[in-house]
Amino acid sequence: MLKKTAIISVFTCISAYTLAQNISVPVYLDESKPVAQKVQDALSRMTLEEKVAMLHAQSKFSSPGVPRLGIPEFWTTDGPHGVRPEVLWDEWNQAGWTNDSIIAYPALTALSATWNKQMSWNYGKALGEEARYRKKDILLGPGVNIYRTPLNGRNFEYMGEDPFLTSKMVVPYIKGVQSNGVATSVKHYALNNQEMFRNTSNVIVDDRALYEIYLPAFKAAVTEGDSWTIMGAYDMYKNQYSSQNQYLLNDILKKEWNYKGVVVSDWGAVNNTEQAIKNGLDLEFGSWTNGLSAGTKNAYDNYYLAQPYLNLIKEGKKGTQELDDKVTRLLNLAYKTTMNPKKPFGNIASEEHRKIAKEIGEEGIVLLKNQGNILPVDINKAKKIAVIGENAIKIMTVGGGSSSLKVKYETLPLDGIKSRFGKEADVQFARGYVGDIGGEYNGVKSGQDLKDPRSEAELLNEAVELAKKSDYVIFVGGLNKSDFQDSEGNDRKSYGLPYNQDQLIAALAKANKNFAVVLISGNAVAMPWIKEVPTIVQAWYLGSEAGNSIASILAGDTNPSGKLPFTFPVKLEDNSAHQLGEYPGNKQELAAGKGKDQKNPINISYNEGIFVGYRWHDTKKIKPLFSFGHGLSYTTFEFGKANADKTVIGQDDKITFTVNVKNTGKRAGAEVVQLYISDLKSSLPRPAKELKGFEKVFLNPGEQKTVQITIDRSALSYFDPEQHQWVAEPGDFEALIGNSSDAIKTKVKFSLK
Amino acid sequence: MLKKTAIISVFTCISAYTLAQNISVPVYLDESKPVAQKVQDALSRMTLEEKVAMLHAQSKFSSPGVPRLGIPEFWTTDGPHGVRPEVLWDEWNQAGWTNDSIIAYPALTALSATWNKQMSWNYGKALGEEARYRKKDILLGPGVNIYRTPLNGRNFEYMGEDPFLTSKMVVPYIKGVQSNGVATSVKHYALNNQEMFRNTSNVIVDDRALYEIYLPAFKAAVTEGDSWTIMGAYDMYKNQYSSQNQYLLNDILKKEWNYKGVVVSDWGAVNNTEQAIKNGLDLEFGSWTNGLSAGTKNAYDNYYLAQPYLNLIKEGKKGTQELDDKVTRLLNLAYKTTMNPKKPFGNIASEEHRKIAKEIGEEGIVLLKNQGNILPVDINKAKKIAVIGENAIKIMTVGGGSSSLKVKYETLPLDGIKSRFGKEADVQFARGYVGDIGGEYNGVKSGQDLKDPRSEAELLNEAVELAKKSDYVIFVGGLNKSDFQDSEGNDRKSYGLPYNQDQLIAALAKANKNFAVVLISGNAVAMPWIKEVPTIVQAWYLGSEAGNSIASILAGDTNPSGKLPFTFPVKLEDNSAHQLGEYPGNKQELAAGKGKDQKNPINISYNEGIFVGYRWHDTKKIKPLFSFGHGLSYTTFEFGKANADKTVIGQDDKITFTVNVKNTGKRAGAEVVQLYISDLKSSLPRPAKELKGFEKVFLNPGEQKTVQITIDRSALSYFDPEQHQWVAEPGDFEALIGNSSDAIKTKVKFSLK
Repeated sequence: MLKKTAIISVFTCISAYTLAQNISVPVYLDESKPVAQKVQDALSRMTLEEKVAMLHAQSKFSSPGVPRLGIPEFWTTDGPHGVRPEVLWDEWNQAGWTNDSIIAYPALTALSATWNKQMSWNYGKALGEEARYRKKDILLGPGVNIYRTPLNGRNFEYMGEDPFLTSKMVVPYIKGVQSNGVATSVKHYALNNQEMFRNTSNVIVDDRALYEIYLPAFKAAVTEGDSWTIMGAYDMYKNQYSSQNQYLLNDILKKEWNYKGVVVSDWGAVNNTEQAIKNGLDLEFGSWTNGLSAGTKNAYDNYYLAQPYLNLIKEGKKGTQELDDKVTRLLNLAYKTTMNPKKPFGNIASEEHRKIAKEIGEEGIVLLKNQGNILPVDINKAKKIAVIGENAIKIMTVGGGSSSLKVKYETLPLDGIKSRFGKEADVQFARGYVGDIGGEYNGVKSGQDLKDPRSEAELLNEAVELAKKSDYVIFVGGLNKSDFQDSEGNDRKSYGLPYNQDQLIAALAKANKNFAVVLISGNAVAMPWIKEVPTIVQAWYLGSEAGNSIASILAGDTNPSGKLPFTFPVKLEDNSAHQLGEYPGNKQELAAGKGKDQKNPINISYNEGIFVGYRWHDTKKIKPLFSFGHGLSYTTFEFGKANADKTVIGQDDKITFTVNVKNTGKRAGAEVVQLYISDLKSSLPRPAKELKGFEKVFLNPGEQKTVQITIDRSALSYFDPEQHQWVAEPGDFEALIGNSSDAIKTKVKFSLK
Repeated sequence: MLKKTAIISVFTCISAYTLAQNISVPVYLDESKPVAQKVQDALSRMTLEEKVAMLHAQSKFSSPGVPRLGIPEFWTTDGPHGVRPEVLWDEWNQAGWTNDSIIAYPALTALSATWNKQMSWNYGKALGEEARYRKKDILLGPGVNIYRTPLNGRNFEYMGEDPFLTSKMVVPYIKGVQSNGVATSVKHYALNNQEMFRNTSNVIVDDRALYEIYLPAFKAAVTEGDSWTIMGAYDMYKNQYSSQNQYLLNDILKKEWNYKGVVVSDWGAVNNTEQAIKNGLDLEFGSWTNGLSAGTKNAYDNYYLAQPYLNLIKEGKKGTQELDDKVTRLLNLAYKTTMNPKKPFGNIASEEHRKIAKEIGEEGIVLLKNQGNILPVDINKAKKIAVIGENAIKIMTVGGGSSSLKVKYETLPLDGIKSRFGKEADVQFARGYVGDIGGEYNGVKSGQDLKDPRSEAELLNEAVELAKKSDYVIFVGGLNKSDFQDSEGNDRKSYGLPYNQDQLIAALAKANKNFAVVLISGNAVAMPWIKEVPTIVQAWYLGSEAGNSIASILAGDTNPSGKLPFTFPVKLEDNSAHQLGEYPGNKQELAAGKGKDQKNPINISYNEGIFVGYRWHDTKKIKPLFSFGHGLSYTTFEFGKANADKTVIGQDDKITFTVNVKNTGKRAGAEVVQLYISDLKSSLPRPAKELKGFEKVFLNPGEQKTVQITIDRSALSYFDPEQHQWVAEPGDFEALIGNSSDAIKTKVKFSLK
């Protein structure tokens, strides 16, 4: 018989069960271990099914983690200007939550127009905080597709026509967002420069344009900004869809740029399992679920990177090398986001966020023209202010596509103006015109009822009568977020302003000389009335603080300092894509009905090559309506003569240019010092000049500052398609410094050895 | 003229904007500051509106944080046995998510029946991990209401009839859950011991019963377990609703017990702003929203602790002392949960969780009777096994009320038995009876179609025929989760088994002598066939691993070691509440139609006082069907003679009892050493004996262990209603040690000075 005797003592039971807490932590959950080791450990514990499950969505905006191992899900969200409201599990419709109202920040064209990197960091930080508070892990933005045509319905979401400006502005945004443990997803990679045929087109572009114009912002986003994810586009390049594209994803992004992050498909952009496996896609979203009803658990099994991939592996037709690479990337992302214990908690609509939204709006507004100093409004003379135009009362945060928002509040232009001027002046409103019923997305409307039974003539007459009896007339018009305006999914139908606005503006200009036109848009528009209108303000989509930002500029509380991030051509044909390139696609193919579906895609040749925006206008000497980099101030600035610290530089040298800028007017203000480089002689054709440096400088009246801008070889290089590399060709260059691409104030020549 | 000149250098823009990251962190977000200071700082920054907003729900299961300050929302979830599926924002209906399937753990009666504190910690840890993975901050459980009547529809969610057992078992559960940064909400505080009239009754109970029977588990939960929240009940005490009750919340919980945590209302349990403000409620959920439609933002403004409270403060009718106290408690909770950066990530359905669920099920199953050692099934003889009874095929994780779940899987008893025995034996099934169509909650059904057109007689005949030609017959019946069975909202209508089961069991007992009855229930039932049935197993609701746990016990893979946490009376009238007390309420008032609504509440007098469960049976010498603490094993145990380390103790002394326990059979097994105290002479009436210590001991065949149990004065005390304090009256006591309340093996006398 056994004689083993143990003694069990129980007065407190605590000691007994708390022992279970000392179970050793597995490596993948051990904070003291390096990430690479944690990732490897997690990967080694996952089943084949768990790995494949991580590669695709489980709902409209989320993808699975590994519940068994405690690796959290990823929750993604639109969009680049504010955090999208919650939607139902497997439907686009909103979920009816009441905790998802947020601050809308200015659209990215407005941010870009600030030419202020600090604003971009503030933007990203604040937006990331809202995403974080909303428990989102991946923010589906920013968008950095280049402005190729003013008709692109989605230009308002992007940062303009210049690869350098876009690159410099996107990096701080990314870092700001990601400081919250929320990943950005820079989109749409790549070459998606129009909405028409976005799912059914193949872009043909030469390597120089690809590398010099269309890729730099993405490269900066991943190499300088370290964007943890990147989103593929809808269209094709080299006849492969961008979200499963060997050239863009494997050859360039992952090999040339050594990208270790996650490639996310755009929603529904995947259509081929083989390509999705091989060509660098890591995470599939939004694919059609073969008609299975919403909420059906198996619906997502039909994704290209779901059961079809699993079957291929189980049948031995595919190995697991690509699978492990994708999962490794996703696990790395998890440790930066969902499994990052140091991430902050975020917040929504703090005073700081409101201030940031307002300030970016103010700094982004561009004073295009101000003949006779109509602005700022002279409150001593402005006893009766007429505000005219539908955009003064139209909600702009709803509509426009996937960036549509549900805001805590949106200050409309009329409200902002009334709030600023209403105590001292009598502010009257006339609508002037009626736009489309719009401002909705997936059936969610702005809540505004803007029906108006009156005729165009009645509206115009009312407005003109009001203008005549007023001291100041402020017209607030432009485009809006309705379909075929500034809105995802379609392009604009024409370059002109819609809804009889041209006639109205011309009539108002005649009715009152104290007249300012405020344009709300994310695109350039034709201005047939330009000569009759003394003052024009480009005010973008400014989000929650729109009305306050605009009023602040109109009143002169803030001195405008925004600069155009894209050219306003006089007419559409002055734009290179429309003159040389193909839009909306190859004419013969268009006539033959191509582009209607994915079986019959249409080709779009970017025949203009690198000559996009001011590169085209400057080189071909086509005078624009307003040039890239243009923007006036209520004060005046004087540029001194620029100097360089060298006259000759070697391939590995830097060269620093110095210029004095002085505020010679009576108001504090800010000027953007813009440095363009001109290659005086080149083996390959080059643009007349290219932006390679800029700095915004704030100056009190009479104050002057010395601005230094340093460049290196990269600012002198072109992409040589023969060598497939960047080349800085020895020879003479000129640094052109000014405050607009068409206002060069001082020049310095130098040579590269 | 100013001659100030600054030099701005810009080669990399990084240095400029990253400066913004160095903004000083406010105290409330500074991890290096003590929590009290952080709470004070957060409180000082909040507006009146933000404070009031935190006190009530914003959706069915969430309450607001402070978005502006980045204080996160609280997300609560049912329930005590598994994490409830996601529901729509403002509706009870499920949201149709596909990521919310979880592991169902055994219902709390089963956990309590393990008499194993380690199991309770494992349970809490695993459940808390699932809640955490599902991003829940407050788990709405465990339930510790005392088992007063076998008719209570919600007994299955509680831990039985004994305050000591419940206290000891609930503490590790709480600590396990909260180790995940997820709060428990111990419920339903207090005196909600039946479902009938739960919203329309007032309980009349003497102070001794209140303090000795109904409160100890709550006290242990908050003073030993440190449950961060506690949930008020629906019913009234002293004519005040429990969730807004001066006596229960302020006088006892917050003053006597010095509770610093958060009092959460049960869903819809608040009905008076004044009382909710004053009487200790901190967080209001589920109130009727005055008919405003679901999702209406303002609906929640009508909550008692919402706009009505804000109005009182703004009108100067209320100060902010209570408000700041409530918000302070909520902020403290936030730092333990939502704002706890050290909380783990959780996980769902890990191998550990499956194992825990199965093990608790196995340890909780109670072998009530095993005449002739019918169990374990002798596989050499059991070539044909008949499984009979609807509960063998009925999903039990759906239904039953708010604890209804959506599981990753649920192993049904028949599946478990087939899986265990199917290779060696021919397992045949006959349904035997048909229950109510049930197993649903808020319109969500189990997905089972259990329609059966056959008559009772046909079903019975089929079963008896199968039983006759089988070697072994296992009947799986009992109650289920349909209304008026083990289900929230209603009580059972009678003590007997429903659906013709009594007749069926009797017939089966006649048909085959190798017969075992397995009862699935959370309540005692009448057993008129007790003498004819050799073997009875009480198998509770065991969750995802139910079938496997049951099969393991039937096969003898696990040796049963569960002990009843409540008495099975022979007949309902043997229960003290039914014999002395009032059920479902005062008879005269019942006859007068009281209890139908809150305007006409019914009184329920607990005339039985402290004599609940075995305290009643033992004292009154009413022999139960099965006694509290009862449970057999497949092996046998021998208790040695108990010794004490003292014969006389002072008021501040401890006394330790020692007893040898030996496994005298041929299988490894576990025995629960139960220590009861009998006060041999007392000024006040006392129960014959009361449980004051227990320990589960695992022994191999032939192995013996010495178990020590130490008690102090608290084990000898009664609550003196005159002095309103616990009194340990000097005199003679006896320690009774055994393996059931009716199987005392050894006794030791001692005296208190």
